[in-house]
Amino acid sequence: MHELKIFSGRANPNLAKGICEHLNIPLGRITLTSFPDTETSCKIDEDVRGRDVFLVQPTCQPVNDNLIELLIMIDSCKRASAARVTAVIPYFGYARQDRKDEGRVPITAKLVANLIEGAGADRVLTMDLHAAQIQGFFDVPVDHLNAAPVLDRYFSEMQLGQDEIVVVSPDEGSIKRAISHSKHLGGTVAIIDKRRSSATETKQENIIGGPIAGRVALIFDDLISTAGSICGAARLVRAAGAREIFVAASHGIFCGDAIQKIQASPISTVLVSDSIPLNKQNLGDRIKVISVAPLLAEAIKRIHQNQSISAMFKEKQPG
Amino acid sequence: MHELKIFSGRANPNLAKGICEHLNIPLGRITLTSFPDTETSCKIDEDVRGRDVFLVQPTCQPVNDNLIELLIMIDSCKRASAARVTAVIPYFGYARQDRKDEGRVPITAKLVANLIEGAGADRVLTMDLHAAQIQGFFDVPVDHLNAAPVLDRYFSEMQLGQDEIVVVSPDEGSIKRAISHSKHLGGTVAIIDKRRSSATETKQENIIGGPIAGRVALIFDDLISTAGSICGAARLVRAAGAREIFVAASHGIFCGDAIQKIQASPISTVLVSDSIPLNKQNLGDRIKVISVAPLLAEAIKRIHQNQSISAMFKEKQPG
Amino acid sequence: MHELKIFSGRANPNLAKGICEHLNIPLGRITLTSFPDTETSCKIDEDVRGRDVFLVQPTCQPVNDNLIELLIMIDSCKRASAARVTAVIPYFGYARQDRKDEGRVPITAKLVANLIEGAGADRVLTMDLHAAQIQGFFDVPVDHLNAAPVLDRYFSEMQLGQDEIVVVSPDEGSIKRAISHSKHLGGTVAIIDKRRSSATETKQENIIGGPIAGRVALIFDDLISTAGSICGAARLVRAAGAREIFVAASHGIFCGDAIQKIQASPISTVLVSDSIPLNKQNLGDRIKVISVAPLLAEAIKRIHQNQSISAMFKEKQPG
Amino acid sequence: MHELKIFSGRANPNLAKGICEHLNIPLGRITLTSFPDTETSCKIDEDVRGRDVFLVQPTCQPVNDNLIELLIMIDSCKRASAARVTAVIPYFGYARQDRKDEGRVPITAKLVANLIEGAGADRVLTMDLHAAQIQGFFDVPVDHLNAAPVLDRYFSEMQLGQDEIVVVSPDEGSIKRAISHSKHLGGTVAIIDKRRSSATETKQENIIGGPIAGRVALIFDDLISTAGSICGAARLVRAAGAREIFVAASHGIFCGDAIQKIQASPISTVLVSDSIPLNKQNLGDRIKVISVAPLLAEAIKRIHQNQSISAMFKEKQPG
Amino acid sequence: MHELKIFSGRANPNLAKGICEHLNIPLGRITLTSFPDTETSCKIDEDVRGRDVFLVQPTCQPVNDNLIELLIMIDSCKRASAARVTAVIPYFGYARQDRKDEGRVPITAKLVANLIEGAGADRVLTMDLHAAQIQGFFDVPVDHLNAAPVLDRYFSEMQLGQDEIVVVSPDEGSIKRAISHSKHLGGTVAIIDKRRSSATETKQENIIGGPIAGRVALIFDDLISTAGSICGAARLVRAAGAREIFVAASHGIFCGDAIQKIQASPISTVLVSDSIPLNKQNLGDRIKVISVAPLLAEAIKRIHQNQSISAMFKEKQPG
Amino acid sequence: MHELKIFSGRANPNLAKGICEHLNIPLGRITLTSFPDTETSCKIDEDVRGRDVFLVQPTCQPVNDNLIELLIMIDSCKRASAARVTAVIPYFGYARQDRKDEGRVPITAKLVANLIEGAGADRVLTMDLHAAQIQGFFDVPVDHLNAAPVLDRYFSEMQLGQDEIVVVSPDEGSIKRAISHSKHLGGTVAIIDKRRSSATETKQENIIGGPIAGRVALIFDDLISTAGSICGAARLVRAAGAREIFVAASHGIFCGDAIQKIQASPISTVLVSDSIPLNKQNLGDRIKVISVAPLLAEAIKRIHQNQSISAMFKEKQPG
Repeated sequence: MHELKIFSGRANPNLAKGICEHLNIPLGRITLTSFPDTETSCKIDEDVRGRDVFLVQPTCQPVNDNLIELLIMIDSCKRASAARVTAVIPYFGYARQDRKDEGRVPITAKLVANLIEGAGADRVLTMDLHAAQIQGFFDVPVDHLNAAPVLDRYFSEMQLGQDEIVVVSPDEGSIKRAISHSKHLGGTVAIIDKRRSSATETKQENIIGGPIAGRVALIFDDLISTAGSICGAARLVRAAGAREIFVAASHGIFCGDAIQKIQASPISTVLVSDSIPLNKQNLGDRIKVISVAPLLAEAIKRIHQNQSISAMFKEKQPG
Repeated sequence: MHELKIFSGRANPNLAKGICEHLNIPLGRITLTSFPDTETSCKIDEDVRGRDVFLVQPTCQPVNDNLIELLIMIDSCKRASAARVTAVIPYFGYARQDRKDEGRVPITAKLVANLIEGAGADRVLTMDLHAAQIQGFFDVPVDHLNAAPVLDRYFSEMQLGQDEIVVVSPDEGSIKRAISHSKHLGGTVAIIDKRRSSATETKQENIIGGPIAGRVALIFDDLISTAGSICGAARLVRAAGAREIFVAASHGIFCGDAIQKIQASPISTVLVSDSIPLNKQNLGDRIKVISVAPLLAEAIKRIHQNQSISAMFKEKQPG
Repeated sequence: MHELKIFSGRANPNLAKGICEHLNIPLGRITLTSFPDTETSCKIDEDVRGRDVFLVQPTCQPVNDNLIELLIMIDSCKRASAARVTAVIPYFGYARQDRKDEGRVPITAKLVANLIEGAGADRVLTMDLHAAQIQGFFDVPVDHLNAAPVLDRYFSEMQLGQDEIVVVSPDEGSIKRAISHSKHLGGTVAIIDKRRSSATETKQENIIGGPIAGRVALIFDDLISTAGSICGAARLVRAAGAREIFVAASHGIFCGDAIQKIQASPISTVLVSDSIPLNKQNLGDRIKVISVAPLLAEAIKRIHQNQSISAMFKEKQPG
Repeated sequence: MHELKIFSGRANPNLAKGICEHLNIPLGRITLTSFPDTETSCKIDEDVRGRDVFLVQPTCQPVNDNLIELLIMIDSCKRASAARVTAVIPYFGYARQDRKDEGRVPITAKLVANLIEGAGADRVLTMDLHAAQIQGFFDVPVDHLNAAPVLDRYFSEMQLGQDEIVVVSPDEGSIKRAISHSKHLGGTVAIIDKRRSSATETKQENIIGGPIAGRVALIFDDLISTAGSICGAARLVRAAGAREIFVAASHGIFCGDAIQKIQASPISTVLVSDSIPLNKQNLGDRIKVISVAPLLAEAIKRIHQNQSISAMFKEKQPG
Repeated sequence: MHELKIFSGRANPNLAKGICEHLNIPLGRITLTSFPDTETSCKIDEDVRGRDVFLVQPTCQPVNDNLIELLIMIDSCKRASAARVTAVIPYFGYARQDRKDEGRVPITAKLVANLIEGAGADRVLTMDLHAAQIQGFFDVPVDHLNAAPVLDRYFSEMQLGQDEIVVVSPDEGSIKRAISHSKHLGGTVAIIDKRRSSATETKQENIIGGPIAGRVALIFDDLISTAGSICGAARLVRAAGAREIFVAASHGIFCGDAIQKIQASPISTVLVSDSIPLNKQNLGDRIKVISVAPLLAEAIKRIHQNQSISAMFKEKQPG
Repeated sequence: MHELKIFSGRANPNLAKGICEHLNIPLGRITLTSFPDTETSCKIDEDVRGRDVFLVQPTCQPVNDNLIELLIMIDSCKRASAARVTAVIPYFGYARQDRKDEGRVPITAKLVANLIEGAGADRVLTMDLHAAQIQGFFDVPVDHLNAAPVLDRYFSEMQLGQDEIVVVSPDEGSIKRAISHSKHLGGTVAIIDKRRSSATETKQENIIGGPIAGRVALIFDDLISTAGSICGAARLVRAAGAREIFVAASHGIFCGDAIQKIQASPISTVLVSDSIPLNKQNLGDRIKVISVAPLLAEAIKRIHQNQSISAMFKEKQPG
C-alpha cells in the first residue's frame, strides 16, 4: 500500500499536529513562506512520489491566502508524483456563496470547488458544509464529516430532561439543523423569524414555535461569524423566558467584535470546534473549543485503508 | 442576429406551443418517435445551422425517457451546427437527489447537470429548482425563473386581510419558501414538524408557530408528488381551526392516487403551473392550472435579445 | 489487490447471477427502485471503497431506464470511492444510431458513449457491438467480446458437410459477419439484396450468391429486433430450395410480435445469447438461448487479474 | 458577418486554389516551411482575428507531415484569435485504422480525431470517410460530403442500359457502396469474396452474385492505394466475361507501383477525384481525375452562410 | 457587434479609469467588497448579457486577494451571460514561478493560468510577462503587449550618442532584454554576473562586457521588487566609472524598503509603468511613472474590433 | 507492484536497448511499420494490461513521423489497459517553438505537449528541454533530467586549472547554461553577441566578457543543429586567442552539412549525448558521443519504484 503522508498549510497547523498525534505519524515537512511581494512559496521537504498525501488546510481567514496556498500545495504534490492527493478542508470558506439569489453575482462556492479539482485534488475531506449540496459541486469523491455528534455529546452529558429543553434555530436557514439536533437531544423547537418591513426598514424579529419560558435554550448554527445572529436570538429567547442559553456551532470564525458581543450577551457558553484556529487567550470565558482532530484522524485513517466513512456515523436515537 | 428557433420534445408540447404563441413564431418542426425496442429517434425537420435554438423539455415523468430525449435533441442540434442551444427545462427532474444524506448514494441532480452540459447545451433556462444550489451544478449559465409572483397574484386578488392569513410550510424543507410568500402576502407563519419516534415508529406531527384558528391557511410547496405531505398538512391545520385551506406549488406531478387524496382532503383549491403537462379531464374540480408560458416566452425573448432576466423579477413588497 | 465486486442493475439480474456463480463470488448488494414519479433511486448496500467494481447492465429495453440506471450506479460507485468501475454492457443499446446518414440527426451511440464516460466509468466490457467502430467512440479502454465462437460451436456439433451449408446474410450490412462465419463453418455464402423501386415503392428482394437449393441455410445477424428481416430472408431461401433454415444472433430483442413471426416462418431454430433477458415461457419452441455468463465471467476475471482478453479469442480454423 | 478566409497547407495547394477560384476570393497568404531538422514552421501572413477560417489540408502522404502541419495551422489560427476554424480534410488519412480487430493495436482514426479537436478545430469538413462512423469520433460538427454523385454522373453520361451493367464490389467491405451505386446506375451486383485457406495459405477468390458475362463492369471503391485489390477484381470479372471494366474511387492514393499495375490490368478507365494531389504527367492514359473543388467550394460557402449542406445531396433516383 | 464593457477589480482602478478615458467610454459599475471574514463579494451593477467584457486586474500585491477577485469577477460575468470575457492582467503575478528548478515545488504560473482559464476567461491581455513562454501556459488566445517602446522613447529623447551608452543587464536572466534594448538605443552591453562561492558563501559579483567607464548606464529589468538587484548593479557600474545611471522596468512592485534603497543608491532615475498602482506621495523624487493606459486602451479597442495587435509593434530600428 | 515494461519506437532503438541492458530486463516486443501510403502501423506483441509501461521515443528527425508514432504507441497502450504510460522523450522536438515572438505563429511546443497528454500519457520523462518552462506546458508530472553532469565530468577529467578555462555562450539564449557550467568547472565567462545591422543587413558578432586569449574555450549549447552557431563562435574565440576549443551539447541533431562544418572549424572535439541516434560511421573524428542510457535507466527505475529523481542531482560544487 502507498504510504500515508500528512502535510499542513499555514491555516491551522495545530489541528494538523493533533491529527498526526492521533495517527501516531510525524507531520510531513514542508516549507511555506510569503515573498515580500505577498506571493506564496512552497517547497515539500520530503519525498511524496507514490505516496497517499493528505493536505490539511481549512480555508478560513485570510481566506484567499489560505485557498491559494492549498492550490499551490496540491500542484506541488501532483507534479512531485504523489499517488493520490486529498484536500482536507475542515472549514470550507466561501460556502455561503452557493447560489445566485440575484442577477450578476458569482457562485463562488462552485468556483472554489472547480479550482480545487482543477489544481489536481483527487478527493476532498470536509466537515459541516454550509449547504450539503456543495458536495455536488465536486465531481471527485467528497467525504463529508459531521461534528454534530461531538457537540450533542456535550449537551447529553448535562442530562437535561426532554421538557427542560428548547432547541432554537437562529434563522430560517438553520431549521433543519435545529430539528435534527432536537431529534437527538429531545425538547421542543423554536425558530427566530427575521424580516424587514419595506416601508420603515425596521427589522422585526419574532419567535415561531416553542414554548421557551423556563427552558434551557440550545441554539445551533453551522458557523459563528460576527455573532450578530446568535446574540440577537439569545436576547429574544431570554426575553421569552429561557432559563439558560447555550450556543453550539461547528465553525467559530469570530470576526470583528464577535467575542465582545458574546461576552455582552445572555449566552452562558458557546461551543465550537477547532476547524478554524482560535487563540485561547482572546476567547474570553464563555467560548469552549472541542477538537475535531480525532474525528478527522479517524476519517483519514479510514480513507487511507479503504474503510467505510459512513460507518462512523451510524445514528443512535435518543432512548 | 441569429434567428430564434424553438423545438419541443414530447414531454410537454402544449407548453411549447403556448410559448410560441406568445412569441408569435411557429414551433420548430421535429420528428421524435420511439422504435419498437424503445429507443428514441430524432430528426430535426428544418435547418438549424447558425440558429439560436431553444429546446423545451421538462424532465417530468417518464423522467428517463424525457431526459434522454432532451440529450438526443441537444446532440442533433449541435451536430447540425446550431449557433447556440438552450435547454429549457421548466421542471427539473431528479432535483431532490441533490446531495448525499447517507453513504453510497448518487447525487443524481449533479449527474443530470453533467449529462446536459456534456451533451452540448450552451445554457439552461429552468424554473423553481428544488434547491437553488443546483444552479451551481452547472458551469454554463443558468437562468432560474420563479413562479411565485404568478402564484401570489392569485391570492392577492382574494384581498384577504393580513390577520386573516396563515402561511404554512408543510415540512421543514419549505420554511424559507413559506416565509418568502408571507413577506409578499402578509400573515403569520406556521410549520408542520414531522418526526418519527424511533421506539414505536409512529409518526408524530405537530405545528410550530401560528396562530391558525379562524385563518385562511395558504400551504406552499415547490412540487406536489404523491400529495401525502400537503394533505397531511391540510388535515392538521383544519384540526387547528383553519377557516379555509389553499395549496400552491410550482410543479404538479400528481403521481399515484394524488388527485383522489386531494379530493378527499379539506383543501379547497390546489394551484399549480403547467410546467408539467396535466390532463384537465383527470384533475377533478379542485386543481387549478396557471400557465407559465408567458413567463417562459418573456425569458426566451430576453435571452435571445441579450436583455436582463433579473429585470423581470424586481420585487414589489406588499404595501 | 483491490477486491472484486459485481453489482447488477435491474436490466438482467439473472445474467449477473450466472456470472457470479461462475466466479464463485456473491452478487453485490444494491437497492434499486423507481419512485412513484418514475425517478430511479440507488443505494449500494455494501462498502465499495477501494474495490474493483463491475456493474452488469445491458442497455436493452426499456433502454432509457436501463441506461440512466447504469449512469446512476456509476455515479454512486465513484462518489463512494470505488477504485475502478467497469461498465459491463453485454448488449449496447442505441448502437445502430452510429452515424449521420442524413442531416440533422443525432449520433446517439456516441452520445451514449460520452454519457457513460462522463458519469465516470473507467472502462467498458461489451459484446458484439453493431459496428466495431463504436469502440472508438470511447477514450477509456473497451474490451469487446465475441459470441460468434459460442454460436458456431452449436452448428459445428451438427457435423454438416461443407457442401451441405450455405451461410446467408439477411442484408448488405451483415455480409462481413456471414463471410466470417463461413470461414469457420465452411459452405458457400449468399446475400439478401433488398431495394425499393422508387417509382412504385414496391420492395424487391433477390439473392446474390449461393447456391442454396438442397442446403442447410445458416442465417447470421448481430441482433433480432422485430424479426422481419430474418423471417423475410428465411422465406426467400426456402423458396430457393433450402433444406432447413437456422438463424443465430448474439442479441435477442424480440420486440412486437417477433416471436409469433418466427413461429409462422420456415425457420427451424433461432439461436441467441442471454445478453438480453428472455422469459422462457414466452419464447415458443423454436428459440434456443445459450448463456454468455461463462464468457463474461472469464473476461471479468481476466480484467481483474490483468490477464489478456485477446488470448480468449485465438482463432481456430476449421479442419 | 465574419469574413471568410481560406488557407492551404502544403498537401494539396492546387485543390485549395480551385476552391478559391470557385468562390472568387483570393487564397489566404501563409508561409509554411520545413526547418533543416524537419520541424514544420508556420506563419500566417494576413490578419485572421475574428475571421471565419477554413484550412484545406487532406492528410494524404506524407500523412504524418500533413497531419502535424494541419494541427500547427489550427494552433496558429486559434492563438491569432480566428473566430472559427474549420479543418477541411477532403481525404482523411488513417481512416482505415478505425477499430480494434485484434488486441493491443491503436484506433488511430480516433486518435487523429482527438488531435484535431484538441488542437482547436471548431468543425470539420471531409469527404467519403472510409467508415461513416468516424463522424462520431468527433464531438465538433462534421460535414461529410459524398463524391458519389460526381462519379455516377460520368457513368450516367455513358447511357448504358440496365442489363448492360454489373456493379462490382472488390471486397466484402465495399458491398454497401456497390449496392448504393447500383441503385443509382441500375444493373446487377457482384462481390469478390477473398479468403485464405489456412492449411495451404493459398488465396482463393470467387465471385458472389452477377451475372457478369457480356456486361460492363463498374468497380467502386472508396480509395485506391496499391491498386492490388481492384486489379485482382478486374482480372476476375474479365475472366468471367465482362465486356469492359471501369473503376471509380473517391480517393486516388496510387502508392508503390499502383499506376503500372493499372496499366497492365484489363481496366479501361480509373476515375478518381483530386482530393489527393496527382501529378498528371505520371498517371498514364487510363486514370481520369475529376475535381471536387466545386463541391468543396459550395460546401464552404454554405457553412459560412449558415445554409444547409444536406440540401446539396437530395437524392435523385434513376428514371 | 457586441457592446464593449470594461470593469475594474480593486487592484488598480486608476489604470482602468485611464483606459476608459482613452476609449471615451464609462467604466462599468461593479460592487466589490470584502466581508468581515475576508471573503470577497462581487456584484456587477449593470447588464453584461451578450456584451464583450474586459476585466482590468493586475495580480499585484496583495496577489492572492487580487487573483481570487479576478476569478470571481470572471465567474460572475460568465454566469451573467457575457458574450466574451477578456482578463486584462497588465502585471501577471507569480510569473517568476514558471518552472521546477528543484524537486517538489509548484509551477505556480501554470497553476494560475489554469485557474484563469478554468474560471472561464475567453482570452487574456497581458504585458511583459517575466518569461514569454507563459503565453503557452494558456490554451486561450493571449495578447502580449510590450512596454519597451514606451520606455525606450524616454531614453531616445535624451539624445545620447551611441558611444555614450552602456546597456546593463542586472543578472543573467535579463540579458536578452538588455540586448534587445541596446538594439533600439545603441551602445554596448554589460552583464552583472552574480555567483556564490560554495566554500565561504560570500557573494561575488563581477561585470561581463562593457566598457562602462564614462558612459551612461541604462539598466533594464522586467520588474523591480525589493530593488536589491538593481541597486547592487548600480553600485557596481558606478564603481566601474559609469557617468550616470538610469533604471527602467515595466513593473514597479517596490516591496519592503525598495524605495529607500533606491534613494540611497547612485541611480538618478527609475522609470516604471503604472501596471501596478503606485502612490505618488511615497515614491520619492527618483521614480518616474509612465502610464500604459493608452497602450492597453489601444489593444482593447483592437481586440474588440478584430484588428491586428501585432500591427501596434512594427519594429522601428535605430537609424 | 505493476511489472515494468519498456518499448522503443523507431526513433532510437539503440538507446532503448542500452536502457534495458542497464536495467537487466528485455526490451518489450512491438511491431512498428509504415504502410506504403506512409501511415504508421503499431502492434504491441506482448501483454501490457496492468503494466507500468515506458515508451522510449525522442522526437528527433523525422520529427513528425516520430511524434505521431509516439502518440500511436501511447494510444495502443492505453486501449490495451496499461496501468501507467510514461513517454520517455530524451530529445523533445519542437522545443524551440515555445512562445510567440511575432503575431500569427503557433506555440508548437505547447501543441505537442497537449497532443502527448491528449493521447493519454500519464507522465513524461525528458532531458534538457530547450526552455525549462516547457515543463509547465504539461499538467501531468514531468521528470526533467540534466545531462550537464555527464558532460562536465568529461572536462573535469582534463584537470584544467581555473585560469586556463573560459566558458563561452554561443548566443544570448545560452548564457544561463554557460554560467551554470562555469560554476562547476570554474573559469571566466564570455558571450557571443550577434546582431544584424538593419541598414546593411550585415551580421556583426562581438564577444562580451572573457578574457579568452590563451585559455581553453568550452562552448556549451543545448543542441547542435546546423552547427552554424557553434562554428561561428569557435572562429571568434580562436581569433580572440583561445588555445583550444571544445564544444558540448546535450543533443546532437547535425542536420545538413553540420558535420562537414565542424570538420572545417577550429573545434577540437564536440561532445554530445546519444539522445538522438548517430551513425558513428558518418560522424568524422571530432564528434564524441556519451551515452545517457545509464542516466535514463536510473530515472526509469526510480520512477517505477517511487524513489526520488531529484536525489540523482544533488549538486556537488567544485572544490
